[in-house]
Amino acid sequence: MSYNYGNNLRVTLYGQSHAPAIGVVLEGIPAGEHIDMDEVQAFMNRRAPGGKLATSRKEPDRPEILSGIVDGVTCGAPISAEIRNTNIRSGDYSNLQDKPRPGHADYTARVKFGQAFDLRGGGQFSARLTAPLCFAGAVALQILKKQGIEIGAHLLAVHDVKDRSFDPVDPSAQLHAAAEKEFPVLDDAAGEAMMAEIENARAQMDSVGGIVECAVTGLPVGLGDALFGGLECRMAPMLWSIPAVKGLEFGAGFGSASLMGSQNNDPYYYDNNGNVKTATNNHGGVLGGITSGMPLIFRMAFKPTPSIAKEQQTVNLATGQNDTLQVTGRHDPCVALRAVPCVEAAAALALLDVLMD
Amino acid sequence: MSYNYGNNLRVTLYGQSHAPAIGVVLEGIPAGEHIDMDEVQAFMNRRAPGGKLATSRKEPDRPEILSGIVDGVTCGAPISAEIRNTNIRSGDYSNLQDKPRPGHADYTARVKFGQAFDLRGGGQFSARLTAPLCFAGAVALQILKKQGIEIGAHLLAVHDVKDRSFDPVDPSAQLHAAAEKEFPVLDDAAGEAMMAEIENARAQMDSVGGIVECAVTGLPVGLGDALFGGLECRMAPMLWSIPAVKGLEFGAGFGSASLMGSQNNDPYYYDNNGNVKTATNNHGGVLGGITSGMPLIFRMAFKPTPSIAKEQQTVNLATGQNDTLQVTGRHDPCVALRAVPCVEAAAALALLDVLMD
Amino acid sequence: MSYNYGNNLRVTLYGQSHAPAIGVVLEGIPAGEHIDMDEVQAFMNRRAPGGKLATSRKEPDRPEILSGIVDGVTCGAPISAEIRNTNIRSGDYSNLQDKPRPGHADYTARVKFGQAFDLRGGGQFSARLTAPLCFAGAVALQILKKQGIEIGAHLLAVHDVKDRSFDPVDPSAQLHAAAEKEFPVLDDAAGEAMMAEIENARAQMDSVGGIVECAVTGLPVGLGDALFGGLECRMAPMLWSIPAVKGLEFGAGFGSASLMGSQNNDPYYYDNNGNVKTATNNHGGVLGGITSGMPLIFRMAFKPTPSIAKEQQTVNLATGQNDTLQVTGRHDPCVALRAVPCVEAAAALALLDVLMD
Amino acid sequence: MSYNYGNNLRVTLYGQSHAPAIGVVLEGIPAGEHIDMDEVQAFMNRRAPGGKLATSRKEPDRPEILSGIVDGVTCGAPISAEIRNTNIRSGDYSNLQDKPRPGHADYTARVKFGQAFDLRGGGQFSARLTAPLCFAGAVALQILKKQGIEIGAHLLAVHDVKDRSFDPVDPSAQLHAAAEKEFPVLDDAAGEAMMAEIENARAQMDSVGGIVECAVTGLPVGLGDALFGGLECRMAPMLWSIPAVKGLEFGAGFGSASLMGSQNNDPYYYDNNGNVKTATNNHGGVLGGITSGMPLIFRMAFKPTPSIAKEQQTVNLATGQNDTLQVTGRHDPCVALRAVPCVEAAAALALLDVLMD
Repeated sequence: MSYNYGNNLRVTLYGQSHAPAIGVVLEGIPAGEHIDMDEVQAFMNRRAPGGKLATSRKEPDRPEILSGIVDGVTCGAPISAEIRNTNIRSGDYSNLQDKPRPGHADYTARVKFGQAFDLRGGGQFSARLTAPLCFAGAVALQILKKQGIEIGAHLLAVHDVKDRSFDPVDPSAQLHAAAEKEFPVLDDAAGEAMMAEIENARAQMDSVGGIVECAVTGLPVGLGDALFGGLECRMAPMLWSIPAVKGLEFGAGFGSASLMGSQNNDPYYYDNNGNVKTATNNHGGVLGGITSGMPLIFRMAFKPTPSIAKEQQTVNLATGQNDTLQVTGRHDPCVALRAVPCVEAAAALALLDVLMD
Repeated sequence: MSYNYGNNLRVTLYGQSHAPAIGVVLEGIPAGEHIDMDEVQAFMNRRAPGGKLATSRKEPDRPEILSGIVDGVTCGAPISAEIRNTNIRSGDYSNLQDKPRPGHADYTARVKFGQAFDLRGGGQFSARLTAPLCFAGAVALQILKKQGIEIGAHLLAVHDVKDRSFDPVDPSAQLHAAAEKEFPVLDDAAGEAMMAEIENARAQMDSVGGIVECAVTGLPVGLGDALFGGLECRMAPMLWSIPAVKGLEFGAGFGSASLMGSQNNDPYYYDNNGNVKTATNNHGGVLGGITSGMPLIFRMAFKPTPSIAKEQQTVNLATGQNDTLQVTGRHDPCVALRAVPCVEAAAALALLDVLMD
Repeated sequence: MSYNYGNNLRVTLYGQSHAPAIGVVLEGIPAGEHIDMDEVQAFMNRRAPGGKLATSRKEPDRPEILSGIVDGVTCGAPISAEIRNTNIRSGDYSNLQDKPRPGHADYTARVKFGQAFDLRGGGQFSARLTAPLCFAGAVALQILKKQGIEIGAHLLAVHDVKDRSFDPVDPSAQLHAAAEKEFPVLDDAAGEAMMAEIENARAQMDSVGGIVECAVTGLPVGLGDALFGGLECRMAPMLWSIPAVKGLEFGAGFGSASLMGSQNNDPYYYDNNGNVKTATNNHGGVLGGITSGMPLIFRMAFKPTPSIAKEQQTVNLATGQNDTLQVTGRHDPCVALRAVPCVEAAAALALLDVLMD
Repeated sequence: MSYNYGNNLRVTLYGQSHAPAIGVVLEGIPAGEHIDMDEVQAFMNRRAPGGKLATSRKEPDRPEILSGIVDGVTCGAPISAEIRNTNIRSGDYSNLQDKPRPGHADYTARVKFGQAFDLRGGGQFSARLTAPLCFAGAVALQILKKQGIEIGAHLLAVHDVKDRSFDPVDPSAQLHAAAEKEFPVLDDAAGEAMMAEIENARAQMDSVGGIVECAVTGLPVGLGDALFGGLECRMAPMLWSIPAVKGLEFGAGFGSASLMGSQNNDPYYYDNNGNVKTATNNHGGVLGGITSGMPLIFRMAFKPTPSIAKEQQTVNLATGQNDTLQVTGRHDPCVALRAVPCVEAAAALALLDVLMD
């Protein structure tokens, strides 16, 4: 089902950008877990609109807990949280009714759902649906952390500007560096250059793509399985649910295609504690679909925001003629930027699901 | 579940490399479909070992139909097909019992399953499991073809050699070109150079990575859905079940990260038949998780075969000491080569599943 | 997952009896369906507390639509509806903290979830969760009705008093008779006697069991499948999710065990319109797990409400001693009575799910 | 999916009565379990045809293990077992092509699957599919036994003859009594009378229904969950996959409908070991969908075998006229008899699945 994910931890999302509310039902979190709501809110704030490089649609994104948590402790019933949509300007979408935005779901969703599709704000295709995803992810992150599993992401690239990569063998010191900054990079100089790229895109009534890199430390050896139970198979549908993703790679990823086996294979050795480690980490922490105990490393490519103010060619479904379109409304010039915490949230949910096998 | 895939079309795989048999149960194929068994066998032969660039383990890969097909016609019961494992040389694996091959599932599976893991030939992690996958895919391909949907793949890259890419806007003339050749490329000169790379890797007791590109034509507009129902989310677990995959991208993929929105967005227009098309196809046929009617284009990165004859560093789990390893046995120097039909099969199964929503 | 049901139509329930809200997310309803909200409310009112034979907890049970319906029409996004819990008297449950009520989930849930279990009002085990189920069922019933499928139930038995059974061959005239009455029976004299039984139980600080019979007309031939896809297999988990169910039978049910094949087999014949019918309906509309086109007939047994005011023997988990208990609070003396619309709702959801295969 | 069951333990069945083989793929059994194959075969022999009261179709029902078990020990890969169909007399079914047997799936399957349906022997609707189910169940029973969980069933009723019931509070001494006898009852006098009923039915070219009662001891407290996760919801689809089931009840079942709460509620007390028990067991071991630690007790009603030699009224789908039918071929006069081990097998698979949550 499209709005459901998970075998052990079930995430059910609902809502449209301009519906009364968006929300999530999270089933499978064990009873008795203390959830720090301030920490949840702090995590959600990382995704929330607000920065000068983001959309001007400002909403507090404050989830209300409807069930599953009593006095800050999970009770075993599904956790339900809703976020009311308060700052709605549906008028912005009136000219999109018949002229689908290139690069967006307008046309494909219109064909799929017909005239009844709730086009306002992109309906259920809006990146706003990542707010309840981040709520659920924030809960999952807290539970993982108690088990010694930590997740961090940063903006690896915007347009042609690149941040430093995580150290694939030991990213622990870098893991939360980006989260603590205004702009989520490891190398602040790269961050400055990226900000310039994004500001430049906005100034040109354009947008720009980017890459998010994520690392996970503390995973035990042995998570995942063969074939469809491979860790990548389990994570991919969750990761790819984030809007605008066009690529996903683990470890050396596409780069491994131009390596020789003797370069790509990561030699095993015993570390000082008698644990089996690999000297390099081209495999990105997963071998044969199963975690190796090395840090899990993956990268996701985000396309440029399709909604741009520049004039574009499109069709007019009402007149049946080719037409032009200028998108108004409030849009982020670089979705990859706000995707950073979303990637962490999605990874947390997918990994907690696998851990609960 | 790890050996099961699909919502409407259920693929269940079983077997280990050196078990009595490997096989597949395929549920959900409608009753009354004529299946051309010669065509199935011809497809499976594309994956089967045999070429001079492949493993020297030669097996006919002839599936026996146990149920679901009566006189060449599906009857509505699950289709069950088995392939007996006949050419087994388990002795090749005796020295691997305690020395895990770098880059392979030996270590991770051993931790997961313990001593009972059937290490011979890689057990259920063997690429041999793609034989029943190809059987199931061959059945799916025939059913898709009757609906006007065609799937083709080629070897886009080996090491640093690149084949010509599919024309993303109209690959129909190129679709089956690779399948009809001894070596699955569009550009024969590139093919020659790739063969040299593979032969060179083998000569050096090494292996080499590659990229497979796949295109699908004839898909209707409107397949897929938002969030976890996105076409990529539905396809990814099937595609990633093929061993050695390290990356997956749709359309412009990772390249879209360095584009501006005005470059990446594909303008809509009405073609001469009044159909909505896009002038370019950076989106790769999927927008908002839903097919656009443009060709579906995706690429998968395959790492170099981990089993290489060169000496490698590893650990000895029996002695608890670092050790070295030389892998004997019969292995393909470039898994990407034989993965070409596997990618087509996996795409066919995933897309037929989505089509049956 | 425990709070999720369905393959094509996905029902996700959440909430506890004394949480801020209970609710449902209903995914899979096609876009473009007009939903009559007054009819939904009228259906929910049949389940809502209020009659003199029911609990004295009075709540309006008015669902708020959060997503999925725009101006009374489904838009293709999941339908989310919440019902705030307003009339809460948690104090009633303070003495149950350590003394589990016999026949209730108190003890089993306490062992499963530990001290964090939200015992107030039975938590997620409360029959109050059937309110969002009835909301979802009311939506499903409207969609089924447009397809000519109608569902009706009545109270077949309370204690030793029996209502007339549905005519298994043609119950269409009786289908909605019970729904239109104050007390949901076909035979009003039986209804009077049942009311006396229930009133008597309450007067004795006791409760009483009952049986609900349900019939569905208009189902096409061919729904369901062999084995786990049998219609009964598909319906059972939904039907059994209603609290207090202890038995389920289709057609002649347990009675068929004491029949000969020649008595139980329903002879086929062509009716005047050339349709295949059966002269009798011991099979209850389902043969080999597949609908036959005859009315679907099933019955469900409901145990007496476990919460009774009479003194009972129980254990005290705090003292580790045997103890006695008198349950205060507001409870229906016969859960079967209010279960009548719940059975219709559950049947509608299960059948719509199967119809969407 | 129709041929798949389970969340953690996945059972996939395949085959038709007259296909080359029937079989099962069983995924999720942990690696390292010793499976006693003689015990498996002994269990399967209880279901196999052969007794004088059963069909004259004699087949050894010897499963061949294709994967998942190496030298008698599970290796973590799916266990695949096939049973070749050897004793096939398809000619018996030629006159059924157009004249559906009353009470059987012939007509409903024909409408569902069309002319391609493999009618011979009932296709995938044949009770023969319970042979691979019993194989899988035999494996599950061995694993449960190691955890102290034991399952036993007996024939509680045939026509109007009743066996003694299990002691619901402590059936442990009775659990395997029926399995050790030629005829699976607790009370041999009742068994004699049942045999007479079955023989009488056969002599009259008729058949007869029956009831199977099953008990499970050793289950821990706390298995199952609220709503759709209720133990009954989890077990019902597995139990109802056995052909000819018309009813299912737990504990007092339909009988609880005519009880008062004060009669039906089972009082809690501490036993001598300080364990919480109930003095009676009307709840049948499950409260609020969760096991209570008391024996799990359930009963299933089986209709009389629909295939009887007596002349019956049916339709002729070829001529479009009413017609008569005399079924030849080899059929059990009482399916409930051979269902006894099937019920144990199904219960074992369902409970092991829940235990693995």
